[in-house]
Amino acid sequence: MKFIFLIIISLTFIGCLNKNNSASVGKMHHKPKAPENNKITTEKIELGKMLFFDPRLSIDGTISCNSCHNVMNGGSDNRAVSVGVLGQKGGRGAPTVFNAAFLSTQFWDGRAKDLEEQAKGPLTNPIEMGMPDHNTVMARVSSVPGYISAFKKVFPNDPNPVNIDNLAKAIATYERTLITTNSPFDQFMAGNKSALTELQKKGWDNFKTVGCNSCHGGNHFAGPDLPLGQGFFQKFPAFPNDAIETKYNFQSDTGLMSQTKNETDKNMWRVPTLRNIADTAPYFHNGKVNNLSEAVKIMAKLQLNVDLTSEQQESLVAFLQSLSGSIPQQTMPTLPPTKNTSIVKVN
Amino acid sequence: MKFIFLIIISLTFIGCLNKNNSASVGKMHHKPKAPENNKITTEKIELGKMLFFDPRLSIDGTISCNSCHNVMNGGSDNRAVSVGVLGQKGGRGAPTVFNAAFLSTQFWDGRAKDLEEQAKGPLTNPIEMGMPDHNTVMARVSSVPGYISAFKKVFPNDPNPVNIDNLAKAIATYERTLITTNSPFDQFMAGNKSALTELQKKGWDNFKTVGCNSCHGGNHFAGPDLPLGQGFFQKFPAFPNDAIETKYNFQSDTGLMSQTKNETDKNMWRVPTLRNIADTAPYFHNGKVNNLSEAVKIMAKLQLNVDLTSEQQESLVAFLQSLSGSIPQQTMPTLPPTKNTSIVKVN
Repeated sequence: MKFIFLIIISLTFIGCLNKNNSASVGKMHHKPKAPENNKITTEKIELGKMLFFDPRLSIDGTISCNSCHNVMNGGSDNRAVSVGVLGQKGGRGAPTVFNAAFLSTQFWDGRAKDLEEQAKGPLTNPIEMGMPDHNTVMARVSSVPGYISAFKKVFPNDPNPVNIDNLAKAIATYERTLITTNSPFDQFMAGNKSALTELQKKGWDNFKTVGCNSCHGGNHFAGPDLPLGQGFFQKFPAFPNDAIETKYNFQSDTGLMSQTKNETDKNMWRVPTLRNIADTAPYFHNGKVNNLSEAVKIMAKLQLNVDLTSEQQESLVAFLQSLSGSIPQQTMPTLPPTKNTSIVKVN
Repeated sequence: MKFIFLIIISLTFIGCLNKNNSASVGKMHHKPKAPENNKITTEKIELGKMLFFDPRLSIDGTISCNSCHNVMNGGSDNRAVSVGVLGQKGGRGAPTVFNAAFLSTQFWDGRAKDLEEQAKGPLTNPIEMGMPDHNTVMARVSSVPGYISAFKKVFPNDPNPVNIDNLAKAIATYERTLITTNSPFDQFMAGNKSALTELQKKGWDNFKTVGCNSCHGGNHFAGPDLPLGQGFFQKFPAFPNDAIETKYNFQSDTGLMSQTKNETDKNMWRVPTLRNIADTAPYFHNGKVNNLSEAVKIMAKLQLNVDLTSEQQESLVAFLQSLSGSIPQQTMPTLPPTKNTSIVKVN
């Protein structure tokens, strides 16, 4: 009974959003907003980039933010679930860091309201970077002279700048530069009608007529721009299917409910962005589907109760490929050394 | 008896080299030579860089060359021994990739004659990148359209360019760009007498009078420039010490003998470069010594039978810090994607 009720809510919500989303789809704003208390500066970006790439922030010196959110490789790791310290596997796939700055909530289950809050999580997750607590993280950062001077420079008004909040602010600031631009679809929306192939244009039409944009609307095909922390969630699957469930085991992870413990949040998930989706296989929260074509078919069936024709399926995949934008060209950071000694100390 | 004989050989060798090495010490040539059959081109460097950074070349998609030879972090990983796929630990520390192009042999035990040969090793090492064989590596590379086109462009005269030898050539070519320059010591040798502190100058004198340059001579403080593949090996320890051995367990790894199976090669090791040594802690083949000062003391005792005064020790550490050069500024590669699918396929 509860279950049917949830589907109805879900479908009603889809209906409500349908019109709003269509209007704003694909209008990419290139610079994400930063919080009032975390202005973007060049020096903060550079510090954040060093921290993002520093495996010494993990307990055994092997895992950096970039290990799973690899900005050289689509902002993710092409794995079903990521691998953290000591070869441990996580329970969910790493969402791409590209354009994460535009999302109104972070993590698959939306448990962080913004990038600053998100950045603190993996550091102390025992199967990700495995540090016992944030004090230990900051003790390690404080033992690197180059970090002390960089934090002082970036946060000049802070009497004790080397702290976890500033670390998270710097990483979040760097992540606000990780924006992809000028995808074929963006070019198409800007007026270049030849930027999409005929198949892609057909896919774009199907995307709207089949109803994909009900949830994957908005500038980032991740739903409407909601206030930070509110997040745009949907139940997945909306139309459970035994055969698909047997094969892919989507429902065993309860999603938002794993955070809230509310039965109404069971299998509710943040609607992920579709930008660069062709480059971030495998798919879904558990990464069980390795192929975009299969993922599209499953989504239509489980969320819209639609059996796609093979023509629809093919055109939708072609359309989704048009959402891959240009990856920003970056210089590599040089991590500040600890002279004469290692801070990892693992034998 | 055999043992004493080896020491005598070792010491005789040290004596012979002493004069030759002093003359050429510190004259850094900035461009390493490339083999006749592997000319350096810009496009080859770029392909090599992509491959060097691509974790998809490991069995589970987690380990790239850069994971252990991190060019953002001194060309190594600051760990005692490195971690490969499935959380497995190697038996030896990762030597820095910076200036490896100048060395006359590769790996701690010199089992590869050049960078090309070296690059092939970790790919199929079960505890490093874990690929079953080179064919599997190349099958994966061949499934990435961007790699196929890049190999064709870089090796235009090769009818089947996507092969393991070309992969190794490209990686080696990239590594020939990983040269550090303009260290305080280089500046000093170029005539800038204030480039070293007084303590560092004293250390440089001690380096020669104590005899460190007997082995750590040459442009890279790694011995003379020998023909490729010949390598410059020394016995370590030359003067075994029970107390040190009990603490650090250096002799259990037989070094060169593990390759040749010759008893005369027992505990023989390639003499490592001292360039950037202050940035590549921890020290020795098993990474058991975390501190450069302790490493210096141990080396004097085990190789020269000298008990350093604390003043000598301090000045030598200061001198070694002057060997850290400028890390080349690099752009990040963008790894060519596989559209719609992951080639890692790990659940």
